[in-house]
Amino acid sequence: MAQTMPNFLRKRAYLTPERPAISYFNQQLSFRELYDRSLQVAGSLAALGVKKRSLTGVLVKNSLESAVFLYALQLLGSTAVMLNNRLSAAELSFQLSDAKAEFLIYEHTFKDLAYEASGKVSKVKMFPLEDLAGGDVTDVPIEQELSLDDVCTIMYTSGTTGNPKGVLQTYGNHFWSASASALNLGLSQDDTWLCSVPIFHISGFSILMRSVIYGMHIVLHSHFDAKKSLEDIEAKKVTIMSVVGTTLTRIVDELGDGRLPEHFRCMLLGGGPAPLPLLEACRSRNIPVFQTYGMTETASQSVTLAPEYSLEKLGSAGKPLFPVSLKIELQDGREAAEGEAGEILLKGPNVTPGYLNRPEETAKKIVDGWLHTGDIGFLDEEGFLYVLDRRSDLIISGGENIYPAEIESVLLSHPGVKEAGVTGLPNSEWGQVPAAFVVLVEEAGPSADELRHYCQEKLAKYKVPREFYFAKELPRNASNKLLRRKLAELIEEAGK
Amino acid sequence: MAQTMPNFLRKRAYLTPERPAISYFNQQLSFRELYDRSLQVAGSLAALGVKKRSLTGVLVKNSLESAVFLYALQLLGSTAVMLNNRLSAAELSFQLSDAKAEFLIYEHTFKDLAYEASGKVSKVKMFPLEDLAGGDVTDVPIEQELSLDDVCTIMYTSGTTGNPKGVLQTYGNHFWSASASALNLGLSQDDTWLCSVPIFHISGFSILMRSVIYGMHIVLHSHFDAKKSLEDIEAKKVTIMSVVGTTLTRIVDELGDGRLPEHFRCMLLGGGPAPLPLLEACRSRNIPVFQTYGMTETASQSVTLAPEYSLEKLGSAGKPLFPVSLKIELQDGREAAEGEAGEILLKGPNVTPGYLNRPEETAKKIVDGWLHTGDIGFLDEEGFLYVLDRRSDLIISGGENIYPAEIESVLLSHPGVKEAGVTGLPNSEWGQVPAAFVVLVEEAGPSADELRHYCQEKLAKYKVPREFYFAKELPRNASNKLLRRKLAELIEEAGK
Repeated sequence: MAQTMPNFLRKRAYLTPERPAISYFNQQLSFRELYDRSLQVAGSLAALGVKKRSLTGVLVKNSLESAVFLYALQLLGSTAVMLNNRLSAAELSFQLSDAKAEFLIYEHTFKDLAYEASGKVSKVKMFPLEDLAGGDVTDVPIEQELSLDDVCTIMYTSGTTGNPKGVLQTYGNHFWSASASALNLGLSQDDTWLCSVPIFHISGFSILMRSVIYGMHIVLHSHFDAKKSLEDIEAKKVTIMSVVGTTLTRIVDELGDGRLPEHFRCMLLGGGPAPLPLLEACRSRNIPVFQTYGMTETASQSVTLAPEYSLEKLGSAGKPLFPVSLKIELQDGREAAEGEAGEILLKGPNVTPGYLNRPEETAKKIVDGWLHTGDIGFLDEEGFLYVLDRRSDLIISGGENIYPAEIESVLLSHPGVKEAGVTGLPNSEWGQVPAAFVVLVEEAGPSADELRHYCQEKLAKYKVPREFYFAKELPRNASNKLLRRKLAELIEEAGK
Repeated sequence: MAQTMPNFLRKRAYLTPERPAISYFNQQLSFRELYDRSLQVAGSLAALGVKKRSLTGVLVKNSLESAVFLYALQLLGSTAVMLNNRLSAAELSFQLSDAKAEFLIYEHTFKDLAYEASGKVSKVKMFPLEDLAGGDVTDVPIEQELSLDDVCTIMYTSGTTGNPKGVLQTYGNHFWSASASALNLGLSQDDTWLCSVPIFHISGFSILMRSVIYGMHIVLHSHFDAKKSLEDIEAKKVTIMSVVGTTLTRIVDELGDGRLPEHFRCMLLGGGPAPLPLLEACRSRNIPVFQTYGMTETASQSVTLAPEYSLEKLGSAGKPLFPVSLKIELQDGREAAEGEAGEILLKGPNVTPGYLNRPEETAKKIVDGWLHTGDIGFLDEEGFLYVLDRRSDLIISGGENIYPAEIESVLLSHPGVKEAGVTGLPNSEWGQVPAAFVVLVEEAGPSADELRHYCQEKLAKYKVPREFYFAKELPRNASNKLLRRKLAELIEEAGK
């Protein structure tokens, strides 16, 4: 029998109704108010036919209404298919169709995108988020109890194949992630977490979950803004904030010679290894940076540098959280020795049960409970993890994951393109930006502008290569596998 | 597949090796030292034949060696049968034999008791705790991973039938209990928990578990001493302490007009409802009392009064911890309304899977995941629990549970006794003490002294009735069920 638990938000509103739950601009809701508002939205959703286990596409941005709506789905036990609002209509269409989403709830500014995306998906029922407030709260079929095995959210990620896959995240994954994080970071009644990362990503969504599980106040921002972040850290007594390298850099710049207030205790840094100069800049400004390593498949942070080692082990992602196991596997399947690099494997109750409707890919990726992350790293003599390379030549641009294979498959679908390779180039603003290397079918083939336009039609803006380079051939190994890491070497020899 | 996790102590020693783990008198061990010492003891135990799933009787008192030994059992995955060192040889013998314990490890001061107890149990292998230090640490078969369904400890409790039953406590029960408690009480790197409650009880054992799960320093005392407690709260920066009514009273007395230091943040009060005058005395001295309700079957606290309500809801045990569900059931099986008293039912991942080798009693006591506590209580209009009567007319004397039925069955085994009833009488020092009411077969039957002596042979000292009253008949209801709560009314009419 799967473990059950009381419905998270309902239980939290019963436990600590008066505590502040969420602030957004000048609005603030207590947990009781958050529950009451979510119940109304749940009433509207139920009237539309949304029910337990309904797959509901979610195309929203960070806002109070979006948060309330996401909690409403949990009250009904409906599974949220979290859509990245920066994706193209074609990409969204693929995800909606792959998930067989029954509903699509969109924020009004995404109306055109939503209609374009859903046009190719049969039978998806669409409703604007703004119409859901003020529903009837009598007889709403609230799930009093939830099974920890029930799927709370689905988030799509790509991989080596280029085909985005829906990662299943159960209530158990989210609960374990939250409690594992609390065991590492500690937990106080005075904690307030600033969320300016997207709530459609696990980085932001996990903060919404922590709010109800911890009974913790969160300050939600519509988007990241360094100045506004510093203002709210001061004014709203923020103690913890989630950042990626690029946003932390902007905070440091904005702070100048200033200091964060004493009550601020944790800058949780995810989204790839941070450059040492940034970490040193934080150290000299007394910003308590906790480097973490995690992914959609582990319902957020899995490895974190414990407070007492944040200085001594600069650059390390730390050690796996209490319930999580980690090992480094060599190509031949043996476990790596100290200092030896290999693939990072993770195991624990926060690890996804797998990919939606993809038993084969699940079986390949999760073996005996061990998630094969595809990332490369090593453990030092004390067991601290150093991440060397992100999975599958992953490009991380301003905190967004970009999978080269996905862009390559778009380029290859162009009739004039014979071969395509994508890699990340260093960029001072975004960390990395994607660049494409193309071999044409005929020399007089499409221009860079034509290819750019072609990509813009099919890909999210941030995935469109900044530069297009044309080459006679791409670097490949003996078995003809593309060597993406050698692409950059072509720049000098290739004509732009 | 059952959820697995890294071995708790091993993982903790890897995560935060330098943090202080446990202090005992003037000794202190870091988590690395605790692991190294436990590994040695595990080596000795393995050499004696103790292995995964071995049932090992544990007859110890609070000491550093005992704690190290209990962690050593967990390294091997052996199940500890926790024996109350205040029990009589006959009682211990019953538990060892009922559990089919393969080993009995005893602290040297309990040697005679251990031998007397084990004399009647065939094949139990006995070893003194003191011989286990300094074992060979090469090739100790450490369980790298544990299943949350594996049984970590067995603790005996009695019930209405008078027959003690072994409560199974899994690693999952302990982990969930610890994390649920942290979600309620918060958790800080500066926390230090003072443990002067017995580690063979869940109240003390749960503190050992929290130490490794949280990475938290604990200060272990051999026994409760008010003066020493206050000294260590100051000197060792204790922030949390577990108490029962009688020990809290002594602390308040010892404190006089004094105050606890600012860093002390939580006096966790278990072991039955506390008298209002005590709670008020604490309030006036600024002692932050958190009333809790829990039991062996729930791996300690299940219901706790959240900090913000500690004054407003004086006398309430609070609300169920985040992962725990609670309901009040009437005799006809319906759920009680607000303010209506009935049996307290609990459900959650900290609830025992059942009683050792007693499927029928398990099925009776745990229905659809709901534990029938036997305790009576009600929920007020905001859902706060008030416990009215402890289960099965339970007597709580200085934090020890005493089940009347157990004493009654001893008395009834005396040939001169026809009927026997036991109840608790108020006592200023212990809260309650047991008193016996007896109907003799013949008027010239055994005297009070004879019966006292008879009980002393078979029962732990604290269970032996303080007073014996003789009566012509005992109060019973229409179906002839003994009405223990009416026994005290006999005192005036009965001759002593």
